[in-house]
Order: sequence, then C-alpha cells, then structure tokens
Amino acid sequence: MTDSSTNMRLKLPIVCFILEIILIILFGVLVEYDHDTDARDFHNMSHHDYENDFYYRYPSFQDVHVMIFIGFGFLMTFLQRYGFSSVGFNFLIAAFSLQWATLMQGFFHGMHGGKIHIGVESMINADFCTGSVLISFGAVLGKTSPIQLLIMAMFEVTLFSVNEYILLSVLGTKDAGGSMTIHTFGAYFGLMVTRVLYRPNLDKSKHRNSSVYHSDLFAMIGTIYLWMFWPSFNSAVTAHGDDQHRTAMNTYYSLAACTMSSYAMSALTAHDGKLDMVHIQNAALAGGVAAGTAGEMMLTPFGSMIVGFLAGIISVLGYKYLTPVLEEKLKIQDTCGVNNLHGMPGILGAIVGAVTAAVATKDVYGEGLHDVFPLVAEGKREASVQGGIQAVSLAVTLGIALIGGLIVGKFPVSLTVNSSTAVSDEIIIILL
Amino acid sequence: MTDSSTNMRLKLPIVCFILEIILIILFGVLVEYDHDTDARDFHNMSHHDYENDFYYRYPSFQDVHVMIFIGFGFLMTFLQRYGFSSVGFNFLIAAFSLQWATLMQGFFHGMHGGKIHIGVESMINADFCTGSVLISFGAVLGKTSPIQLLIMAMFEVTLFSVNEYILLSVLGTKDAGGSMTIHTFGAYFGLMVTRVLYRPNLDKSKHRNSSVYHSDLFAMIGTIYLWMFWPSFNSAVTAHGDDQHRTAMNTYYSLAACTMSSYAMSALTAHDGKLDMVHIQNAALAGGVAAGTAGEMMLTPFGSMIVGFLAGIISVLGYKYLTPVLEEKLKIQDTCGVNNLHGMPGILGAIVGAVTAAVATKDVYGEGLHDVFPLVAEGKREASVQGGIQAVSLAVTLGIALIGGLIVGKFPVSLTVNSSTAVSDEIIIILL
Amino acid sequence: MTDSSTNMRLKLPIVCFILEIILIILFGVLVEYDHDTDARDFHNMSHHDYENDFYYRYPSFQDVHVMIFIGFGFLMTFLQRYGFSSVGFNFLIAAFSLQWATLMQGFFHGMHGGKIHIGVESMINADFCTGSVLISFGAVLGKTSPIQLLIMAMFEVTLFSVNEYILLSVLGTKDAGGSMTIHTFGAYFGLMVTRVLYRPNLDKSKHRNSSVYHSDLFAMIGTIYLWMFWPSFNSAVTAHGDDQHRTAMNTYYSLAACTMSSYAMSALTAHDGKLDMVHIQNAALAGGVAAGTAGEMMLTPFGSMIVGFLAGIISVLGYKYLTPVLEEKLKIQDTCGVNNLHGMPGILGAIVGAVTAAVATKDVYGEGLHDVFPLVAEGKREASVQGGIQAVSLAVTLGIALIGGLIVGKFPVSLTVNSSTAVSDEIIIILL
Repeated sequence: MTDSSTNMRLKLPIVCFILEIILIILFGVLVEYDHDTDARDFHNMSHHDYENDFYYRYPSFQDVHVMIFIGFGFLMTFLQRYGFSSVGFNFLIAAFSLQWATLMQGFFHGMHGGKIHIGVESMINADFCTGSVLISFGAVLGKTSPIQLLIMAMFEVTLFSVNEYILLSVLGTKDAGGSMTIHTFGAYFGLMVTRVLYRPNLDKSKHRNSSVYHSDLFAMIGTIYLWMFWPSFNSAVTAHGDDQHRTAMNTYYSLAACTMSSYAMSALTAHDGKLDMVHIQNAALAGGVAAGTAGEMMLTPFGSMIVGFLAGIISVLGYKYLTPVLEEKLKIQDTCGVNNLHGMPGILGAIVGAVTAAVATKDVYGEGLHDVFPLVAEGKREASVQGGIQAVSLAVTLGIALIGGLIVGKFPVSLTVNSSTAVSDEIIIILL
Repeated sequence: MTDSSTNMRLKLPIVCFILEIILIILFGVLVEYDHDTDARDFHNMSHHDYENDFYYRYPSFQDVHVMIFIGFGFLMTFLQRYGFSSVGFNFLIAAFSLQWATLMQGFFHGMHGGKIHIGVESMINADFCTGSVLISFGAVLGKTSPIQLLIMAMFEVTLFSVNEYILLSVLGTKDAGGSMTIHTFGAYFGLMVTRVLYRPNLDKSKHRNSSVYHSDLFAMIGTIYLWMFWPSFNSAVTAHGDDQHRTAMNTYYSLAACTMSSYAMSALTAHDGKLDMVHIQNAALAGGVAAGTAGEMMLTPFGSMIVGFLAGIISVLGYKYLTPVLEEKLKIQDTCGVNNLHGMPGILGAIVGAVTAAVATKDVYGEGLHDVFPLVAEGKREASVQGGIQAVSLAVTLGIALIGGLIVGKFPVSLTVNSSTAVSDEIIIILL
Repeated sequence: MTDSSTNMRLKLPIVCFILEIILIILFGVLVEYDHDTDARDFHNMSHHDYENDFYYRYPSFQDVHVMIFIGFGFLMTFLQRYGFSSVGFNFLIAAFSLQWATLMQGFFHGMHGGKIHIGVESMINADFCTGSVLISFGAVLGKTSPIQLLIMAMFEVTLFSVNEYILLSVLGTKDAGGSMTIHTFGAYFGLMVTRVLYRPNLDKSKHRNSSVYHSDLFAMIGTIYLWMFWPSFNSAVTAHGDDQHRTAMNTYYSLAACTMSSYAMSALTAHDGKLDMVHIQNAALAGGVAAGTAGEMMLTPFGSMIVGFLAGIISVLGYKYLTPVLEEKLKIQDTCGVNNLHGMPGILGAIVGAVTAAVATKDVYGEGLHDVFPLVAEGKREASVQGGIQAVSLAVTLGIALIGGLIVGKFPVSLTVNSSTAVSDEIIIILL
C-alpha cells in the first residue's frame, strides 16, 4: 500500500507537469491571436467594436463552459461514493483537454500560415471536444485512475479532431451541436474503453447506500444546468443572426417535450409507480442531444418537439432494458448510462439531421440557405446528396469511435493500469 | 397501497403523454418561426446580424431560465422532506407550462395571419408565465400530486394569459417585470387553491427535523440565483437600449437595500437574536418583486432603494405575523410563504408603478417616453390617467387570481384528488 | 447569554437600518443615471440601441455577480461549522458593500457636475470592490460578528477607493482585472485585520469533523463558478472589442494551466498521495488572479499559460508551507488562505503586468495601443516608464492595504468587539 501510494504520489505530478510543459511549448511555437483578439489586427480592419465575434458568442461560450464544468461534473455525483472523484477528475481532465483540443483542432482546421489562430470560437470548440471526453469518462467512471483518464483524454481528443476534420472539412457535413461529433463519438468511444476495462466485481449498487438524498440533489444541479444551457450549446457555433436564434429555440422546445416523455416513461416502466431519479437526471436531457444536428436547420418547433419526445422515450427504455443487457451479455459496464443519454439519442439526432437536410429547399431557407447548407446554396451539391453525406458521416463517426476506443482502451489505457500494479476503487478515492 | 400505486403508475404517464401529444399537434397547426428566427424572412430584410433580437435578449433569457429551473426549484428545498418533490415537480410542471404558455400567450397576443410567431421574446414570456405557476406551486407544496399540479398549471397558464392580455393589450398597462401579472397573480391564485385544499393535519414543522443544515444550503442556492438574476428578469422584455439598462440597474439597487432591511427585521423580530433562514431565503428577494412594474420607469436608484427597503420590511413582518394568522383564521396554509415574497411585495410594486407612471413627464423622459409610456407620448393619454389604469390593473389582477384560483382549486384540481382516492404526503414522496 | 443575545438582537438591526438610511439619503442627493441609463439623455444622442454599454458589459456583469455571491459565498463553506455563516454573512456584507462602493468610487472618479453618474460599468466596479471586501472576509472568517464585518466593509471600501483612485487616475496604472487593486489589496488588508484579532484558541481543524463530504461538494460549487467566470471578471471593464475578447481568452488559458500545476503540486506535497481538496478548491483559481493585470495586454496565450502554471505552484506551496508559519510565527490566522489564493498570486500578477507593460511596442499593439496604454500611445510616457509605474503601484497598494488593515483592525473593528462584551464562535453561529 505504501509502495503503491508513493508510486501514485510521484506519477500524477510527473504526468501533469510533463503534459503541461509540452502544451506550453507547443502553444509558444504554434498559437497566435486571431483577428478579433489581436490588438493590431482588429484595429487594422474597419470593424466596429460591436462586430467583434466576442459579442456574438461569448455569452454562449460561458453557458457551454458551465455545462462542461458544473453540468458534467455534478451530473456524475449521483454515484454516492464517487462524488469527489467525478467533480475533481472532471475538473482535471477538462482543464487538460481544452488545451490539447485547442492544438489538435487548430492543427486540423485552424492553421493560417503555419500558425493556429484562436479566439472565442476556438474556445467553444475546445470546450465541445472536452465534452466528448467527459462523456467517455461517464462510461468508465469508477474504474480508472486520474492518470489513465489523462492518457485516455490525450488520445480521444486526437481522434475526435480527426473525425471532426473528416466530417466538417472533408465531407462538408453539418453538425453544429455535435449529435455525431460530440455525443455519438464520445459515447461509443467510452463504451469500448469500458468494455476493455471490464471488471466483474464492480458493483455499482453497493456504492449507492447511505445518504443518497443529497447526492441526488447535487446530481440534479448538474442535470438542470445541462438542460437549461443546451440551447446555448447547440447554437454556440452556428452562423450569426437567425441561425443562432433558431437553433436555441428548437433545442428549447425539444428539451421541454423530452422532459414530459421522460417523466411519463419513468413512471410507466417502474413497478411501484416511483419515478426513477436516474431517468429524470439523464433522459430529460436526451432532447438536447437529439437536436444537435438538425437544430440549426428549419426543423420547426413542431419537429423539434417530436424529436425530443422520441429521444426521451428511447433514453428511458435504454436505461431500463438495454443497460442491464449490455453489462450481462456484452460485458459493457456503462456506469452513467452514456449509451442512453448520448449514444442512442446522438444516433437519432444524426438521422433526423440527414432527413432534414435531404428535404431542404431554397424556397424554405431563402438566402439563409448559404448559412445552413453552403454547398447546396452554391449549387455544388443536391439537398438529397447532403442528406446522404450526413448519414455516411454517422457511419464514419461510429467506426472511428468504436475502433478508436478499442485500441486506446487496449493499449495506452490498459498499459497504464499494468504499470501501476493495481488500481482498486479505494486507491482512486484516496487519490482524490 | 398496491392498488393506489398501480393507479399512479398509469395515470401520470397517460396525463403526460396526452398533454404532450396535444401540445405537439397544436404547435404543428399554429406555430411558426418569427422574422428573427426564420431563415428566409430574416435574410429578406436588410438587417445586420447584430440587430437580431437574439443578441439583445438571449443572455437575459438564460438568466430568467436559471431563475425558473434552479431558483424556484432549489428555493423550495428548505422543506427537508420535500427536497426531491420540489426540484423534481418544479422541473416537470415548468417543462409543461412553458409549452402551453407559448400557445396561450401566442393565441392572445402573438397571432399573425392565423399563426403564432415565436422567438426569444416569446420564450421569455413563456418562462415568465411558468414562473407564475411555480409561485402558486410554492403555496400548495406538500399537498398536491404531480397530476394535480399539471392540471392546475394548465388552467393557471390560461387564466394568466387572459389577465396579461387584458392588462397589456386592452388597458395598455406597463408591467415589464410582472409585479402584477406574474407575482401578484401567481401568489393569490395559489393561495386560493391552497385554501380549497386545506388539510388540518398538515404539519410543516415535523418535516424539518433531521439535517436541515444541507437543506438550507441548497435553498440558499435557489435564493441567491433568484437574487442575482432578478435584474435580468425585470429587464428581459423592456425596450432595447436605455430601458433594459435602467431596469436592470434599478432592480440591482432595490435588491441590495431589501437585503439590508430583511436582515435587520429578521434579527429584530427574533426572540433570541437568531437570524431566521426563511427570512433571509425569501424576504431578501422581495425587492426584485417590488421593482417589477416601476423598474423600467425613471424611478431613480434612490427611489428603487426605498422600494426595496420597504419590501424587505413588509416581507419579514408577513412571515412573522401574517402567515400564522392566515393559517389559523383563514385556513390558508401558505407552505413557502408566497404571500410574503410575491403577494404583498407584488401589490407594493403595482402601487409604486401606478404612482411613478402618474408623475411621468416629457421633461424627465425626453424621447424615451415613447418606449416607456407610448400612449402618453403620443398624447392619447395623460400620465395621471396611465397611473389610474395601472391601479385598476392591480384590482383586475387580484380579481381574476382570486376567483380563478377558487374555481380551479374547487373543480379541476379537487376532482383530480377524488379520482385518485387519496393522496397522502407519503405517496407524493414515493412518486418521486 | 440572554443579555448578550438581547444586545445582538438590537445591535444588528440598528446598524443595518442606520447604514441603509444613510445610503439612501446619499443616493438621493448625489446619484444620477448616466447617459446610457437615462431615458432622455440616451435618446438625445444619435446612438443605436446596440451601442448601449449594456450589451457590451451586462453578460460579464452577471458572471461577476455570480462570482461574488455564489463563488465567494460557497467557496468558504468548506469550513463545515461555518457553512451558514459564510454564505449568509457573505450575502449581507456584499449587499452593503456594493451600495457603499457605488458612492465611494463615484466620489473619487465618477463625478459629473457634482453628481455621481452610474450604469453597468459602475455596477461592475462596485461588485469588484465588494470582491475585495469578501477576500478580507476570508481571512477573518470565524472570528468576527456580522456587525464587525459591516464596520470593516465600510472602512475597507473607502480605502479601496482611495487606492484605486491613486492607481488608475493619478498614476495611470492599468489593472483591469484587479491583481493589485482587488486581490493584493483585499488579501493584505484582511491579513492585517486577522493579525489584530489574533485568538490563540481558534482551532480550525476541530470544525472540520463530521460530514465534511457535502461541505466539500458545496465548496466545489464556489470554486468552479469562480474558475469558469474568471475570464469575464478580468475582461468586464476592459475596452470594447478585441480588448475584452483577448482578456477573456488569456485568462481562460491561464486558469487551465494553473489547474494542471495545482493538481500536480497537491499530489507531490502530500505524504500519502492524497490530493488535498483545499488545494484543488483554491490553488486552481490562482491563475485567474495572476492574469488580472496583464490579461488585457498582448500577453499571448503562451505567456498566460506560464503565468497560470507558476501561480498554481506558488499557491499550493503557500498552503502547504507558508500558512502554518504565518500562524505560528506571525500570529496571522489566515482561515481561508487568502494569502495563497489572492495575496501572492496578486503580487505575481502585478509583476507580470509591469514586465508586459515595459516591453509593449506600437509594432505589436498597432492602433490598439490607445486602448491598452493610452499614455504610451499618445507619446506622454515611455513603455518602460509605464512598467515602472506599474511596479510602484504594487508598492502603493501593499502600503495602503497593510497600514489600512492595521488601523481598521485595531480601532473600529476591535472597538466593536469590546463594546459587545465577547463574541465567541458560538454566538456568531447562533446569529445566523
């Protein structure tokens, strides 16, 4: 024990220091202010101050930031024994991931003359990528040391950026709220990692004994912040003007409908009429995930509500019937049920996006078509082709996530386990 | 018991599903994007992106959203036994109410060519109407099943919209922060419902036994979010420019002064020098309620502070001396003391608004008079007449709230009780 | 005991009422709406609504507001016995301080024709000054009655405004995020007051016994809100456009790097590999403090990360090795460790600001130099001189804070103690 903890005492600091020093050096070599953050460049252009991208996106950025640090962090406190671990590790891997994501995303689609240009939009994208890592964290919660999480984050951010680059830059896919790039990717990557790390004796129920009461109230803080700010999440990087406005509103109605169907399904599937807090805490959010791709499109409030309504039903059914099967048959221990909150609703969102894209017309979008489907507006692509490419993008995302998760779980993450002899739950708790 | 819970198990899902399906159908038939959310319409007009209403109101909307879901939800956790119920039911009825309010408010004052046009302003108004329902929820907390709450919400939203229509559209009343339309209406509607549902053996004090400590800290989260974002609440739908700015600032100073007088009165009325957490959690907010009508007017920071100062005093006195009398003499069990936080401060706010309107002059407001009192600016109405109409509006609001609450409590809500045999506190708790 | 509590029962109300009435009278005599909040003035000018300062600063103001009331309030709940005291007293002294700060700051640098003009910028500045008082509160937590805190706040706000006036108006120092004016000042003022109030038998560790678990989760809410919104804090009053944008981004990267080094140092300095929650809750924030002066300058993301990285290291070392020495050798009982979170990182921030200012060139800043260093841009001052004056400003701040804290602790605060006979921890607890 003394040996193991001495080991820990040195390993975590060394890993953190090395990673941060590498980050600082790479930032020094590669990163520059963009035109809206650089004092000279912004004043060189004939811009008004109010046209600075800061005013269009910073309020949304802060909402997203709250979702990443409070929302994801506290949502996971429902596992009573892991209250500290979830908030504390969430904080650490998020702080690392957002820096690493700035570099990876910049490398793939933010280079200008050999330099990565950054501003509020890149900050939002870095937070988005971090969100994907935290979704995977939800799948492996309780089985991994902070060092393993940092290693997983490093590889996941890289693969996330590759997938995002293929979708957004190569295929011309639209996915502003990340049903595919963030939610589907994060969920299935994490599920593969947790499969690799399968531990037969992990008994979640045992950790939910005393004083669940306050743990559940803390988890509701996470849930409600995610719920409230999801409109900002989906609209944070859509085009200025009507696009941001429409996306936020579609998401708002999708979530409201989803909450209604989640409560209904939770009571319906319970054998004693008791609402299951886990359903309320998670399924009610599926409407935000499912509006992630089509939210910026002319989905209509009516369409958004149908999407949210279905997402809530799917999500509760997943928690009730699929999660136990995944664990028993496939040995996938999905601690927080990310397949139900992010996986299946993400796939639903991708399909809705593909269909909505396929039926887009100039008549409905007018000049706004340039913002939502630029390739279709410029006549370079039929709407139906755009729809097909959206569907292909889902397959690409699933492929990269599953294979990536398998490899990253099998090698870097598992090797880290071995080198630290044995990481029992106790030691993880001790470490925080 | 098994019978009753089976009953519950089916009733809540059925009610939720039916309500949501009706909402979706009505949205499909009636609701359309407005000019700032529609891709074609927004691009048809010669607008700059930064003129989209989204950028004027979305940050305020999100603050209001936090007040509705975190603020109201957690404020009510101070009743220890009802921690889950308050947060969980709050979530459900808010998700329903905001959809239903979109339709009702749109029906009464948002129709354009047979369609309801929606955007960020209608979202704020829907949240406002939801706030009113949650105020009534505070009055009946601990006595109602979720189904009863949904029924109450359905009728209350409808009556809210009628009252709002009479005030804002027929009478030309000003009430941007809703001292009358939201707070007075919600409080007295709820007080009548709780009167109808009077239950002699409801003993609140018993529910406050163990571990009140953390319950009170959770409640402080609710309080402080309401307190911080009240400036956004009152300014969210005022005119662009100086109006939003002035309203936020007036509310800020009203709240600060109210906090000082609440602490003072709480210590003064205590018999042992102990500050009462219930006073701090509630009375300190009365300054926001009381600035709801006059906040957008040229109330001056000085005037705002006097209003807040008085509101804090009235509110603590209400908790200390009036609430027990209401319960004993009038059989009104005001669980959260909404009469003290929303009722009397709302009336104070309405009176302050009437007086401030009556003394408005072109000299003080300049061209800004068109934003605040358009009818007065256009010479269609004297300022003194505007003041009188503001006072009449308070009477109208009280009348509709009291009669409406009586009828809604007596019939739809009470009938729901009967049909579900008996709803004891235990079953309510079990249901969440 | 009865005697003492009767005493309390009357003293707190009397002090609150007198202070608030004085505030209201002074507001009535001295305070007016500024050009962006006054209905007539704003419409007299040929402004567009979107140019109102409200839209540039209000979202940042609300973030700062959350830091002051939720951030500071809940950060201090980690001392389990003081959960209520910290949140409740925080609320009271903040509500008082922001009103008093409006007057003091207005008196020193907001007078127009004998009147203090106020708007969103003065609201942010009032919140900033309040933040400084709350930092000092962190140093004396557990030793002071609410009345003493109000007295301390009254004098501290005054001295804060004097120091701020000397720095910003007389010396032309740049300190938008307040490394000097807010953090260094608040920390060293508070440390001197706590030195004067030294109480040998104050045993913090005893207060951390039962159920620390939830206390620590509440404290993490405070920490994470401070962490997330610090970019808004540092950028809230910088110039419009690229300045606000750049400041927010620099702070974001400084905080991320700081979190990494805080975790590393916490594990490294632990004897059992256990991360210390106090380090996580506090040291991870030092990166925001240290970016307070140079954040608006062309510090580069790379430079910001180095600053944050160092701040985290210094802060953990302070908690580990300096705090015990301060208590034992200098009799300074720094309850919340404000020297480690605000004091030393504030000094680091001031030094970084001085160096960054000294190397500023027209080549790097272009026309933006007018926003960041107006005197240098106008040729009235060399950049190196600006750097020197920044360094002098740190010395001035330290001098005023230390001497001011000594005098205010010695006389008004200590005299209040004596007059109320004896204020034991118990009575303080009882009072809330």
